[in-house]
Amino acid sequence: MSENQETIIALLHGPDQPGLVSRVSSWIFLRGSNIFHADQHKDLEANIFFQRVEWSPSGDPEKEAADFKKFVRDDLGMEVSVAISKERPKVALFVSKIDHCFHDTILRFRAGEFAGELTCILSTHDSLEADARTYGLPFHYVPVSAETKAEAEQEQLRILNEAGVECIVMARYMQVLSDHFLAQVGCPVINIHHSFLPAFAGGKPYHQAHQRGVKLIGATAHYATAVLDEGPIIHQDVTRINHRNSVADLIRKGRDLEKSVLAQAIRLHLDNRILVYNNKTVVFD
Amino acid sequence: MSENQETIIALLHGPDQPGLVSRVSSWIFLRGSNIFHADQHKDLEANIFFQRVEWSPSGDPEKEAADFKKFVRDDLGMEVSVAISKERPKVALFVSKIDHCFHDTILRFRAGEFAGELTCILSTHDSLEADARTYGLPFHYVPVSAETKAEAEQEQLRILNEAGVECIVMARYMQVLSDHFLAQVGCPVINIHHSFLPAFAGGKPYHQAHQRGVKLIGATAHYATAVLDEGPIIHQDVTRINHRNSVADLIRKGRDLEKSVLAQAIRLHLDNRILVYNNKTVVFD
Amino acid sequence: MSENQETIIALLHGPDQPGLVSRVSSWIFLRGSNIFHADQHKDLEANIFFQRVEWSPSGDPEKEAADFKKFVRDDLGMEVSVAISKERPKVALFVSKIDHCFHDTILRFRAGEFAGELTCILSTHDSLEADARTYGLPFHYVPVSAETKAEAEQEQLRILNEAGVECIVMARYMQVLSDHFLAQVGCPVINIHHSFLPAFAGGKPYHQAHQRGVKLIGATAHYATAVLDEGPIIHQDVTRINHRNSVADLIRKGRDLEKSVLAQAIRLHLDNRILVYNNKTVVFD
Amino acid sequence: MSENQETIIALLHGPDQPGLVSRVSSWIFLRGSNIFHADQHKDLEANIFFQRVEWSPSGDPEKEAADFKKFVRDDLGMEVSVAISKERPKVALFVSKIDHCFHDTILRFRAGEFAGELTCILSTHDSLEADARTYGLPFHYVPVSAETKAEAEQEQLRILNEAGVECIVMARYMQVLSDHFLAQVGCPVINIHHSFLPAFAGGKPYHQAHQRGVKLIGATAHYATAVLDEGPIIHQDVTRINHRNSVADLIRKGRDLEKSVLAQAIRLHLDNRILVYNNKTVVFD
Repeated sequence: MSENQETIIALLHGPDQPGLVSRVSSWIFLRGSNIFHADQHKDLEANIFFQRVEWSPSGDPEKEAADFKKFVRDDLGMEVSVAISKERPKVALFVSKIDHCFHDTILRFRAGEFAGELTCILSTHDSLEADARTYGLPFHYVPVSAETKAEAEQEQLRILNEAGVECIVMARYMQVLSDHFLAQVGCPVINIHHSFLPAFAGGKPYHQAHQRGVKLIGATAHYATAVLDEGPIIHQDVTRINHRNSVADLIRKGRDLEKSVLAQAIRLHLDNRILVYNNKTVVFD
Repeated sequence: MSENQETIIALLHGPDQPGLVSRVSSWIFLRGSNIFHADQHKDLEANIFFQRVEWSPSGDPEKEAADFKKFVRDDLGMEVSVAISKERPKVALFVSKIDHCFHDTILRFRAGEFAGELTCILSTHDSLEADARTYGLPFHYVPVSAETKAEAEQEQLRILNEAGVECIVMARYMQVLSDHFLAQVGCPVINIHHSFLPAFAGGKPYHQAHQRGVKLIGATAHYATAVLDEGPIIHQDVTRINHRNSVADLIRKGRDLEKSVLAQAIRLHLDNRILVYNNKTVVFD
Repeated sequence: MSENQETIIALLHGPDQPGLVSRVSSWIFLRGSNIFHADQHKDLEANIFFQRVEWSPSGDPEKEAADFKKFVRDDLGMEVSVAISKERPKVALFVSKIDHCFHDTILRFRAGEFAGELTCILSTHDSLEADARTYGLPFHYVPVSAETKAEAEQEQLRILNEAGVECIVMARYMQVLSDHFLAQVGCPVINIHHSFLPAFAGGKPYHQAHQRGVKLIGATAHYATAVLDEGPIIHQDVTRINHRNSVADLIRKGRDLEKSVLAQAIRLHLDNRILVYNNKTVVFD
Repeated sequence: MSENQETIIALLHGPDQPGLVSRVSSWIFLRGSNIFHADQHKDLEANIFFQRVEWSPSGDPEKEAADFKKFVRDDLGMEVSVAISKERPKVALFVSKIDHCFHDTILRFRAGEFAGELTCILSTHDSLEADARTYGLPFHYVPVSAETKAEAEQEQLRILNEAGVECIVMARYMQVLSDHFLAQVGCPVINIHHSFLPAFAGGKPYHQAHQRGVKLIGATAHYATAVLDEGPIIHQDVTRINHRNSVADLIRKGRDLEKSVLAQAIRLHLDNRILVYNNKTVVFD
């Protein structure tokens, strides 16, 4: 929408009150700035107002972004996060031995599909190290076992902190992050689960799906929370299967789903299109 | 979004200019009215601004709607149409002998899916007359042949005029409306074409699709214009077929597509969610 | 495939053994009959062979069907069911007050989409009686309450028995059939559940889906068994939703899913395309 | 279905005659071999019988395959092609500067998704040479211009011949192959076109789609023939777009379609699941 111009993108939410659209847009207009896009949503049950507004600033973007934040918080009493389009958040990829989401995500970053910078790979196995190096990406091998988990997570936090990571993507990472880790890491963590949640949460979802005899399999991208597979859902998709499909076929078909659903979630997140509340997402796409 | 409250819905478009979102929302806010939803779009190539805004009026809806129209035209120099939610446009259904879209559309009106009132049926055949009467709907049998077309269209215009029809739905009508008719009728005409346009325009699209060996068939709802199957597209969908499917199978599968695509188009139109420009549609859904 | 010719359709399954395809097809060929279609499946884990074979008989269909049954059971040691295409099973529709699947299913029977005969309507409410009469269908009002359930089911069984019903379709019936009923009724019962099973089994699935914040809703047609929502799945489909959709929107969107998924299941069942084993279905489509 | 066992896969077609299923299956059974899967189709209009049959041979696979070929041709008078599962056809990838299908196809070959061997890359540009080398694949840079086309095609034919290529995949190759090339090359050529054919054939289909205002974009995999974009269609898929999507968005969304549709076509082809006749495909999946 605004590919070559620098823009400010704000995500607001808070109790609904009359005139919010007008007050926000007027603040921007009266400053001489130009709204590119504004989208809002009211949750009538919860009486919450949500807005995503993107505009081309008239002056210094950092200053204007800070002023806007202050305005929204002080004058409107709402929560707000503000991003500047030229600032590209640093992303870390958590992987294991499974490589399809690994390659797919990296190639999409290389193709410019995501408004962020892929900074480093963290893995519980060293099998993708050579491929990561080929892509020119730092690769951190941090094995995790039941005994060493606490220690390993400390090492992961150290690496993420040092690299200034602002978003973690679990590309079939196959480990559960501890509450402690999630509390400490201080940035969103996007996970891909290989089922249509809430169906088939937990381990071996394709085996579960095959056992139950469903006619569609799915994939779900969500923000990781302390409760496994119960975080706010960002995106989901499904594909058709039939009685001829073995578990191996489900795994193969599922790979395509996992790649595209995860990619869509990363793109929406880095485009600042997602607001989370009540363990659900508002996705302004 | 605003099911139990009366709202005003405005559709605006015109040359883009700074502050449009702010000026529109402020006009509403300063009047003491409350925006329920506002969505806008900029066509950056054509430099056109489009907006759909829905609000709960603070005073008399008719007066407020008229004032808003004047404001948009005079002060903003834009085109605008305004609807009041309690006013339900009168719809006429044009049919032939084919009955699946006929039943489906009527049952959806009965189920309250559409923000309009189904007023009458016009048909080139009398085969659906008994069913129409069962539904309690006036049925006008107006046969059309090459020789009588001009005359028949005059009769149709008379019926539509008398009934105060504000929207025509061609539910597999199987006739092309003349330029003259379209110029005279003065209301939108929604048509369903049984292919994924622009593929397989014209007659017997399922036969064409079978002949070409495509793996998906589609349906397209569009506004009828003087050029057959070339009007602005409102909605499209497809379904998968394979080599086992005969033309009869395509026709059967296509019926479901035609029903759901036409229904979606009627709903979007009667909810005032569609703006037309450059033979394309902006659909605010 | 064989629209104007009488055919025999057999569904076989049993332990795999060499030469099954050859022995079955040769039996038919040597009798001078002509195979229209044959499809088979092997479950390599369970070592079970499944086949659907459809052929044009050379002699009296009833005699040939009976001979084939005997051949399969005695010579091949497999289970088999055989149908003759001109025999159209009698179907009963179980409904409540909800009417969209009621109308849709009846209209599809009228349009000739199903290889069966709709014989009667049984309902827990009398609200659809007038519509049923308009369609020319016998309507049996059998109210069901916790106290009268056993008695009501006896009455239902009596009606079904008298009408010679061979297949029951629950078109949003909103009641659980007792184990006793299912054991007594002696014919397949197709149910439509308004979620993507196994997600959101039980009551109010759209409310559950809205609460969880999923991005797709689904519908599932399955054979009813003693365990609620756990019977063999016949067909499933989903549609996309977003944060703007209220529970009422989910219900509206879901209606289209329920109609098309149920219709597909009825069609597959009446075309003798479904084999059940291990609480799963093999669907030869 | 038969992952660890060597199988023979035969594709037959020819005029329908009574007993074909029986005669083919009996030939295999009487030899002591075991059918894993058999699927057939009759085109009732054209009176052609098609079959794909896969079995585990009882003796030497080469000998049994040759005997079967002779049987089908001489005794049944039908056309037949026979493959042995352990023989993995050599595939060449034709590319240009566009890299998404290039990476995706190579990674799928590496992941073992295809029953073939990727042998070499031919490109009109040298921009993907380094990536090809990283993947360990021979890269042949053969620039093509209007003047040098005939010469370049000779060079391509020489490379393909030397490498023993049995299938060519055009992964967004952006060049039209001449009739001469297609006549000479003697192996199937799979192409991916970035539209839902027959809509938007020719150049710049995403621009055409944007201009027409369609609500879905598609991709089509087909066998290349002398007539551009008119070859037999193997697979198609679509994705939803809306008025907010620029041509750049269509291109981005289309990349995912192109990758998955091309991959599906390659997989079906290498699994010997496709028969071509009357410029259409029978796909036994």
